Amino acid sequence: MRILGIDPGYAIVGYGIIDTGNDIKVVDYGVIETPKEDTLPVRLQTIDEALRVLFETYRPDEVAIEELFYFKNQKTVIQVAQARGVIVLSSQKYCERIFEYTPIQIKQALTGNGHAEKRQMQYMVKSVLGLSAIPKPDDAADALAVALCHSQINPRLNINMCS
Amino acid sequence: MRILGIDPGYAIVGYGIIDTGNDIKVVDYGVIETPKEDTLPVRLQTIDEALRVLFETYRPDEVAIEELFYFKNQKTVIQVAQARGVIVLSSQKYCERIFEYTPIQIKQALTGNGHAEKRQMQYMVKSVLGLSAIPKPDDAADALAVALCHSQINPRLNINMCS
Repeated sequence: MRILGIDPGYAIVGYGIIDTGNDIKVVDYGVIETPKEDTLPVRLQTIDEALRVLFETYRPDEVAIEELFYFKNQKTVIQVAQARGVIVLSSQKYCERIFEYTPIQIKQALTGNGHAEKRQMQYMVKSVLGLSAIPKPDDAADALAVALCHSQINPRLNINMCS
Repeated sequence: MRILGIDPGYAIVGYGIIDTGNDIKVVDYGVIETPKEDTLPVRLQTIDEALRVLFETYRPDEVAIEELFYFKNQKTVIQVAQARGVIVLSSQKYCERIFEYTPIQIKQALTGNGHAEKRQMQYMVKSVLGLSAIPKPDDAADALAVALCHSQINPRLNINMCS
């Protein structure tokens, strides 16, 4: 099964694609960046376009998206949530099997500790996927972590189906 | 010029379409509703689909969208912002001339008082548009108010171009 993990963001959206089965393989990972100089509508369109290409190229069976955690700055929440709306809509158009996980669930699934540090998470991503180095940038590693979390929590249970 | 005003929401999105020129005429108004029983991805898709139909039917020249004001409940902010992301993206795909106004700007434009009460706003919408009654539901009246605000603030100045 092919899983697309997404770390939602406004300036940077992380993505990571893995194939699961007897062993777990990385297919691709990276980030979608939206220039600060562009307006909100153009930046959302950039994200939408890039996701379309990803979905058409890799045709994932399931999508796992990180839930928004709470920010101190409400302007940031609104910007990231607007981008996340676009990400969820795109996932729905191309895949329909969408799951979401909180940062604590992702940390728990990968390290056994819901409050693990970023470095420990990145080490586990590298280790489980048999990579020679920690994936860069952080947003791509985070997206692979969401995908791995989904592969480890039995998705048949539908516990975290996007609600 | 035809203006589509939008009052963003998650459960209810208000819309109002007006034609401006020598006089101002209402073309249509109403709401897009998303059932609580549906999942987030399905509700966002419902909004996207309904907007597509509105844009294809009425072909507005410009879109005016209310900015999100600050909520006490961060869960509500995230839900409405996700929907607003979908609304802005749809507007960008079909129109590209997108403007946004704060609630205070809208109240100021319609009543001369940035802190006017809802009832006063609704009365002005009815009065300026020559309607026999206040448009229902409130979200539709709010959307017409955004459209009217845009028609009154000279859009050529591009002051409130969505950024």
